[in-house]
Amino acid sequence: MRVGIADTTFARVNMGAIAIDELKKHTSVAIERVTVPGIKDLPVACKKLIEERRCEIVMALGMPGSQEKDRVCAHEASQGLIMCQLMTNTHIVEVFVHEDEAKDDRELAWLAEQRTREHAENAVKLVLYPRELEKDAGTGQRQGFPDAGPARR
Amino acid sequence: MRVGIADTTFARVNMGAIAIDELKKHTSVAIERVTVPGIKDLPVACKKLIEERRCEIVMALGMPGSQEKDRVCAHEASQGLIMCQLMTNTHIVEVFVHEDEAKDDRELAWLAEQRTREHAENAVKLVLYPRELEKDAGTGQRQGFPDAGPARR
Amino acid sequence: MRVGIADTTFARVNMGAIAIDELKKHTSVAIERVTVPGIKDLPVACKKLIEERRCEIVMALGMPGSQEKDRVCAHEASQGLIMCQLMTNTHIVEVFVHEDEAKDDRELAWLAEQRTREHAENAVKLVLYPRELEKDAGTGQRQGFPDAGPARR
Amino acid sequence: MRVGIADTTFARVNMGAIAIDELKKHTSVAIERVTVPGIKDLPVACKKLIEERRCEIVMALGMPGSQEKDRVCAHEASQGLIMCQLMTNTHIVEVFVHEDEAKDDRELAWLAEQRTREHAENAVKLVLYPRELEKDAGTGQRQGFPDAGPARR
Amino acid sequence: MRVGIADTTFARVNMGAIAIDELKKHTSVAIERVTVPGIKDLPVACKKLIEERRCEIVMALGMPGSQEKDRVCAHEASQGLIMCQLMTNTHIVEVFVHEDEAKDDRELAWLAEQRTREHAENAVKLVLYPRELEKDAGTGQRQGFPDAGPARR
Repeated sequence: MRVGIADTTFARVNMGAIAIDELKKHTSVAIERVTVPGIKDLPVACKKLIEERRCEIVMALGMPGSQEKDRVCAHEASQGLIMCQLMTNTHIVEVFVHEDEAKDDRELAWLAEQRTREHAENAVKLVLYPRELEKDAGTGQRQGFPDAGPARR
Repeated sequence: MRVGIADTTFARVNMGAIAIDELKKHTSVAIERVTVPGIKDLPVACKKLIEERRCEIVMALGMPGSQEKDRVCAHEASQGLIMCQLMTNTHIVEVFVHEDEAKDDRELAWLAEQRTREHAENAVKLVLYPRELEKDAGTGQRQGFPDAGPARR
Repeated sequence: MRVGIADTTFARVNMGAIAIDELKKHTSVAIERVTVPGIKDLPVACKKLIEERRCEIVMALGMPGSQEKDRVCAHEASQGLIMCQLMTNTHIVEVFVHEDEAKDDRELAWLAEQRTREHAENAVKLVLYPRELEKDAGTGQRQGFPDAGPARR
Repeated sequence: MRVGIADTTFARVNMGAIAIDELKKHTSVAIERVTVPGIKDLPVACKKLIEERRCEIVMALGMPGSQEKDRVCAHEASQGLIMCQLMTNTHIVEVFVHEDEAKDDRELAWLAEQRTREHAENAVKLVLYPRELEKDAGTGQRQGFPDAGPARR
Repeated sequence: MRVGIADTTFARVNMGAIAIDELKKHTSVAIERVTVPGIKDLPVACKKLIEERRCEIVMALGMPGSQEKDRVCAHEASQGLIMCQLMTNTHIVEVFVHEDEAKDDRELAWLAEQRTREHAENAVKLVLYPRELEKDAGTGQRQGFPDAGPARR
């Protein structure tokens, strides 16, 4: 399994390193990593990981700031990541942690690590164990903060 | 008839299972199912169902959360689903239930089930009985909550 | 002249039937009609009318609801219709009537009919009489409600 | 030099005629003109001018209304024009005059004419005299209202 | 290394000249420059620099105004730049300075220069020294204003 990792220098946590650490716990994996300045550089970085470095799946890791402008950037990056997936028929697991999701730096670091690790598991499942995801269909899974759980218990 | 079902682990109701149950009531159907983490993973999942698993139509099932960020995610997913349809000349029936459409978990579960079942019928009609839809043109059909009905009675 | 008509079961007026009635008044025309559940299903429906049923022009008819969510749906549908046109080099005349443009059901029905009829004329002109449109350039034409007229009189 | 002119019947000023008048002052030019109902019809109109009528550059002229719905239309049209340019590697000079930029009809007519004329010059420069634009880089040029000028004087 | 520089006459600082000055400090570089009227002209300008003038990377430099309409323009331009990158598998370093980020003309000029210079360095690293960016992954880099720094110290 060959996994691409694209992260940013803008983020305030080394999400790429965390993703790689987690992936290695779960499977024998070849990693192709690239770091770009900001989240709007991620779509083409992912496309190059898929087409030029033959990744079967990519994790796109970023940390949008808390201003309105940052929210627009995140929206643009997400649209680009979806388009990239459609152009390549390849999943990209977007892991964005918005700075204003956390109450302080400590929680931000925790959230970024936790969400990255849980999504690294999702990346492995998407490629190797799709039935694992199907078993969790409709169960209100969340990455980072606690799961919402199913509506009917 | 081969139908793709793409749903999420984020949703709080097993919409994929409901869709499959309903489809089987209406027609002899081959199902290809995939479950992904969230709604932004649906566009490429649908594209793969169409191109790699030869589905004639796909149902994309998801349950966006109630925060502003979730609304943006739903918007991005919808744009991706429309683009996917244009790239493949294949209908994707989007079934999104916004968590804030329901007043509590019980209504949410009811709404998700009802809307999924009604849209499963639409999927069958789109492929096998397009004249059935034409007969209902301009009659104010809704999926889940009651129909609005025609403006002129 | 072969015209595609795509409308919805969501709309509260049979806009497709009105469009066909109007088109037949103006020219000898072959009609290809399809009805889909909602406006987000229109882009791919139009693409199929163009590519699989060889329409030279398509009318996309819909009636977005009055909630914020409905406005977002209309925006997504419009973006898809523009993309579809760019992919096919074929005009699609979008006829959307927003439920909140009218003060009651009676006005809504009137507006939907009037706008559909005026846009059906536009569709004919786009294909057969482009000079007619050029003569009206910059004259503040509106479809449904009264024309705004030119700024300089 | 072959220039495409796409304008609308919705606009309240004959922007197409003004653009043609101005272009002819600057260079020997072949004009291909098309008028469409509204600004959302412009992207495909421009694509056809480029691909079917072999224009080297196109001016897309429109006048969005002052309501929120009109702003969304303008946004959709602009996105389509950008996509069209990317698909054709051809510049489209967008000249949009928002009705609410002017305090009355008289100013609206003046603004539409002035902006159209200044952008017609830009179109000529983009194709024939790109160095002229480079000389004005970062000088705060505006089309219609007075230039903003450079930040450092 | 061949770098494309696309800037605008709308900007109030000669960002293109600054970018070229900075690039030449870091590496032996061939420059292809184009100046367009506004930021919405940048996506196709970048595409032409990549496809017709064989640039390996492009800097897209612009200065959106402070009105709501300008923010929408910037959003459209950014979406186009991301799409352009996906179509060409080539990085475009977007350097946008919003007029309302600075308190006066003097700070605006300073910010435009500083951000342009720091992003010129990023462009060099993206092509020639990708490991330099990887070393800064997750360290809260900013261009122009001070770095945010890592969340964990």
